[in-house]
Amino acid sequence: MKVIVAHGAKDLRVETRDIPTPGPGQVLVKMAAGGICGSDLHYYNHGGFGAIRLREPMILGHEVAGQIEALGADVTGVERGTMVAVSPSRPCGVCTYCAAGMQNHCLNMRFYGSAMPFPHIQGAFREYIVAEAAQCADAGQLTAGEAAMAEPLAVVLHAAKHAGDLMGKRVLVTGCGPIGLLAVLVARAAGAVDIAATDISDFTLGKARDIGADHIVNVASDPQGLTAFEADKGYFDVLFECSGVASALASAVPAMRPRATVVQLGLGGDMTLPMQSMTAKELQLKGSFRFHAEFFTAVDMMRTGRLDVTPLITHALPVDDAQKAFELASDRSQAVKVNITF
Amino acid sequence: MKVIVAHGAKDLRVETRDIPTPGPGQVLVKMAAGGICGSDLHYYNHGGFGAIRLREPMILGHEVAGQIEALGADVTGVERGTMVAVSPSRPCGVCTYCAAGMQNHCLNMRFYGSAMPFPHIQGAFREYIVAEAAQCADAGQLTAGEAAMAEPLAVVLHAAKHAGDLMGKRVLVTGCGPIGLLAVLVARAAGAVDIAATDISDFTLGKARDIGADHIVNVASDPQGLTAFEADKGYFDVLFECSGVASALASAVPAMRPRATVVQLGLGGDMTLPMQSMTAKELQLKGSFRFHAEFFTAVDMMRTGRLDVTPLITHALPVDDAQKAFELASDRSQAVKVNITF
Amino acid sequence: MKVIVAHGAKDLRVETRDIPTPGPGQVLVKMAAGGICGSDLHYYNHGGFGAIRLREPMILGHEVAGQIEALGADVTGVERGTMVAVSPSRPCGVCTYCAAGMQNHCLNMRFYGSAMPFPHIQGAFREYIVAEAAQCADAGQLTAGEAAMAEPLAVVLHAAKHAGDLMGKRVLVTGCGPIGLLAVLVARAAGAVDIAATDISDFTLGKARDIGADHIVNVASDPQGLTAFEADKGYFDVLFECSGVASALASAVPAMRPRATVVQLGLGGDMTLPMQSMTAKELQLKGSFRFHAEFFTAVDMMRTGRLDVTPLITHALPVDDAQKAFELASDRSQAVKVNITF
Amino acid sequence: MKVIVAHGAKDLRVETRDIPTPGPGQVLVKMAAGGICGSDLHYYNHGGFGAIRLREPMILGHEVAGQIEALGADVTGVERGTMVAVSPSRPCGVCTYCAAGMQNHCLNMRFYGSAMPFPHIQGAFREYIVAEAAQCADAGQLTAGEAAMAEPLAVVLHAAKHAGDLMGKRVLVTGCGPIGLLAVLVARAAGAVDIAATDISDFTLGKARDIGADHIVNVASDPQGLTAFEADKGYFDVLFECSGVASALASAVPAMRPRATVVQLGLGGDMTLPMQSMTAKELQLKGSFRFHAEFFTAVDMMRTGRLDVTPLITHALPVDDAQKAFELASDRSQAVKVNITF
Repeated sequence: MKVIVAHGAKDLRVETRDIPTPGPGQVLVKMAAGGICGSDLHYYNHGGFGAIRLREPMILGHEVAGQIEALGADVTGVERGTMVAVSPSRPCGVCTYCAAGMQNHCLNMRFYGSAMPFPHIQGAFREYIVAEAAQCADAGQLTAGEAAMAEPLAVVLHAAKHAGDLMGKRVLVTGCGPIGLLAVLVARAAGAVDIAATDISDFTLGKARDIGADHIVNVASDPQGLTAFEADKGYFDVLFECSGVASALASAVPAMRPRATVVQLGLGGDMTLPMQSMTAKELQLKGSFRFHAEFFTAVDMMRTGRLDVTPLITHALPVDDAQKAFELASDRSQAVKVNITF
Repeated sequence: MKVIVAHGAKDLRVETRDIPTPGPGQVLVKMAAGGICGSDLHYYNHGGFGAIRLREPMILGHEVAGQIEALGADVTGVERGTMVAVSPSRPCGVCTYCAAGMQNHCLNMRFYGSAMPFPHIQGAFREYIVAEAAQCADAGQLTAGEAAMAEPLAVVLHAAKHAGDLMGKRVLVTGCGPIGLLAVLVARAAGAVDIAATDISDFTLGKARDIGADHIVNVASDPQGLTAFEADKGYFDVLFECSGVASALASAVPAMRPRATVVQLGLGGDMTLPMQSMTAKELQLKGSFRFHAEFFTAVDMMRTGRLDVTPLITHALPVDDAQKAFELASDRSQAVKVNITF
Repeated sequence: MKVIVAHGAKDLRVETRDIPTPGPGQVLVKMAAGGICGSDLHYYNHGGFGAIRLREPMILGHEVAGQIEALGADVTGVERGTMVAVSPSRPCGVCTYCAAGMQNHCLNMRFYGSAMPFPHIQGAFREYIVAEAAQCADAGQLTAGEAAMAEPLAVVLHAAKHAGDLMGKRVLVTGCGPIGLLAVLVARAAGAVDIAATDISDFTLGKARDIGADHIVNVASDPQGLTAFEADKGYFDVLFECSGVASALASAVPAMRPRATVVQLGLGGDMTLPMQSMTAKELQLKGSFRFHAEFFTAVDMMRTGRLDVTPLITHALPVDDAQKAFELASDRSQAVKVNITF
Repeated sequence: MKVIVAHGAKDLRVETRDIPTPGPGQVLVKMAAGGICGSDLHYYNHGGFGAIRLREPMILGHEVAGQIEALGADVTGVERGTMVAVSPSRPCGVCTYCAAGMQNHCLNMRFYGSAMPFPHIQGAFREYIVAEAAQCADAGQLTAGEAAMAEPLAVVLHAAKHAGDLMGKRVLVTGCGPIGLLAVLVARAAGAVDIAATDISDFTLGKARDIGADHIVNVASDPQGLTAFEADKGYFDVLFECSGVASALASAVPAMRPRATVVQLGLGGDMTLPMQSMTAKELQLKGSFRFHAEFFTAVDMMRTGRLDVTPLITHALPVDDAQKAFELASDRSQAVKVNITF
């Protein structure tokens, strides 16, 4: 079977591996679609990010969906041919954080396509994968592309939990990559009453407007675009910071109401922040990292039509065009989510 | 001008009063629509409820909307002719609860059409009313009927705050009067992923289904209808109890997940509850009473199209048919919200 | 070894069993002290409570401490001779509630001395017990009697979590059995600024005063004793309801502030509650059931001197006097916590 | 009467003003003690901090207590001669934040001794002050020095609310000035089970140990002192950051558990923070600014003996030695709280 392997910055290869066999409690999934994520792009373009670096070849990919091809022993309640979204989150289940229901902080996490431990955890951009049956969410009538969006949607649903109830709230999203655009969708689905989005790409901002943002601001061409929201100590109740860029957060601070929540999703290394005004406003800056049970909620929300991710899937390329797909996904002037089809 | 006055059980009269004049900070509103609420019906049908009894004639009504007809001194930012929803919540602004942002518990509340203090607080079913400008929410392009729904919608938005984030949650609503149906609408608008509703009227249950309930159960004809949700200690994360009937709550307990939230909106006197199982499940039973700032959020949510209350407005009758309107509103086999038009 | 077995109401026998052998990951504990709990008394006096009945002989007891006598294979980090408190909470670790960090709602819980499933889960009033090493908390220099209080203290710490921050708050405790008195201690340890306690026994109320209650009310001799707290819609922020008696809760309602929290610990079957006033006040009635991780916190708090449970241990009798101990523990005019020594 | 006026950096003068007369609802307080706060020191040493600068002479001081000397019209419930703590917080009571119970974010706040608006809000280091009766908390048998500590204690109680329940928690305090030391006291009073404190002064760290810190770390002489707490992704549940120094927060990050709360009290301008690891850990960084109702809670907690602030009052000097008092308060090797006596 074909797999997509990162050997280093700008060194992506389609290689061949043996098809694995599912053991007890496991299933073999014939992959249908895989979404390219920002972290995949970091490995591809830079060989890593921050202190996390590729130290050996690693199969990329963790946003995947496909059909169940074979069942291991003792697997019940699933059927061959079912389209499933496969969760890349594989916590140990027994450490102190797992026992506390904080599986995303598992001390022994094996998250697909992650160079954090060594040896690295190999990813899921491969024609076949063996997964625990419990990792698989029945995707029903969703397309493979939609089902593969369960992972980034779960990231945003997890972030939204940190923000609490969004109904009737005013929400700002900084950074309109796939995560930021999903934040717009999620804010709409959760009943936010006014949604603004900022970015430096008119293409992604146009998408933001299409899917429900009430205001869009290109902070490159209109750096003062948020000042309209600064009267009376600010306007927004919640900020989803999806850019990882300190200036995006800093420029949003005057537009946030006192005690507003800032959910930080973007990962961008050290950030220099206006802490004096953030403290005086009593902003609540909450980091959000991955997800766990929200993966299944994400599939539920798509299946029941509570939100529609299809406008975000801008491209789909076959596995043999993997490098082209990664280049395309790196171009924010024309791509949001690029899928690889298997 | 005409007003609708309750003199006692089944003694409703359309009477005449002088048109009042707005003072500083006030406006004169020419009433357009008034919704009949459950408490209005209690006064009409029974002369009160629980310990709260009519002790003098009282103008009914607190769900109202109309056009601004005249401005008192020092009123800015509003214009004659604007359609406004008028909040019936008039807290004192200075007591300990007002200072704590809990205006619905104001020690000196003067809520329209309430027999709680004596002399009673006269209501808003009248052709003209003088209100503080700050009580009025610009209803924009909403119809008068929609604008008059701001009040019960605010009740439900306040209740939803007690429940917290509803996105991806499973929600049960017991009792599908106007409040229960608005709870279905609000749960949908807040991203709940599975919504069930119970009642004893097929008419209101049909409405529930029309506006977004995924399951409906007539507990009169199908008393075991919730047992399907009892496996593994229960299914629902949140219950909006809108009936005020102990058996409705009690029969829902086995279908609630451990630590689920039960928001009690229905007011029905003493209730005998299965506290041993409620305690063992660690259910959280939270009373919800009226609202304050949510009134303006309610108008915002309707204006921005986050939810549509129009399917709930089943009838509109002119003020001279007030008694007929009250009879109709008491008949749950054909009416949800009955509006009086002025 | 000797064990204490309930065969039915008022039929308690000291019997003999073989000493068990610890397996991998387990330890053998030579029991030193066991506290008699209210549920033990229900089995002893009534053969059960509510729908939970003895259907076969059951060793009682779940508040226990002793010294480690022997180690099974693969046990590290503990030493023979160490005094440990043994947690009776044995969740499965894999069900949906365990995965969510809600182990007290485990679908497969095996809690010592519980007749809830059948066959019953045998208890810990025995001279030796084999426990998982992970169930044992190092009790350091605590006495066996104190260490055995870790369990009821954990119950109250869990309840306090439902109440949230108690610092500077006004706390009412209804019912001054061991749980209620621990609630007084915990409220003090958490910085509550004014604490009142009610009961119908002057003896337990005297204890409450000794350990930190600022006000005590005997609701038998002074049924109006709480009316002093009813002005301005109430005084207390939190109620720990430890009696399981509806009238205790009902009579406290007028003394609770709007949006106060009522934590229900007492288990007393169906309760008829003044729901209309509870709803109008927006009280939050939260059931609290058992505990899990709080067991270790309880030991920590005693070891570091954050609170002192010794005034609550009124009696200690040897295992051969078990019946006498149970009779004594049933007499609220002279006993709080009665320990059995082994 | 004498007042203490800052004219600029290092230009502090004792001047004379007329004694004011209380109006309706007001009282005249004969000042007894005034504590020097960090912001007073900023005005004294640097003429301001960050963008907040002295632009005209300003009477300093906002931590004050004294005896009621005279009553204005319509003042009831207070008596001449009563020792009161005077809250410096004077919100407008009507703006959107006041109505929401967030008085510390009042759009029109007039907080004593603050150069934030212009003209500046004059402070309370004066022999007599006219205050609203509602600003005054009966300090009972407290000394004037203790009563003057109500203000900084209120700051910390407000911060602790952001952290939530501290009982059984592990708490780290960075920066052991008066605020940091009060955080140690408050953490103890709230039942924290393990408390560590860091600073660069052995004197203040000694105080921290004296009042209840279980661990102290001088990060100047022992920069690796917190590494002992870094195993398994960290140890502390809550950090009170009281230094305003980015390195203090940054060095604490590896010692914090995932989802730990960091309450930022220190005001130190822009801070460069390790956001990638803070985000991956999902730390919750919450700014805390001033207080409002907590002022009265602070007095209650001192009056009922829940905590004892007297060890923090290291010096008291008469008003004529104001400059000497300010120099002393600036020396962290020998002073914690320096009081001015009037």
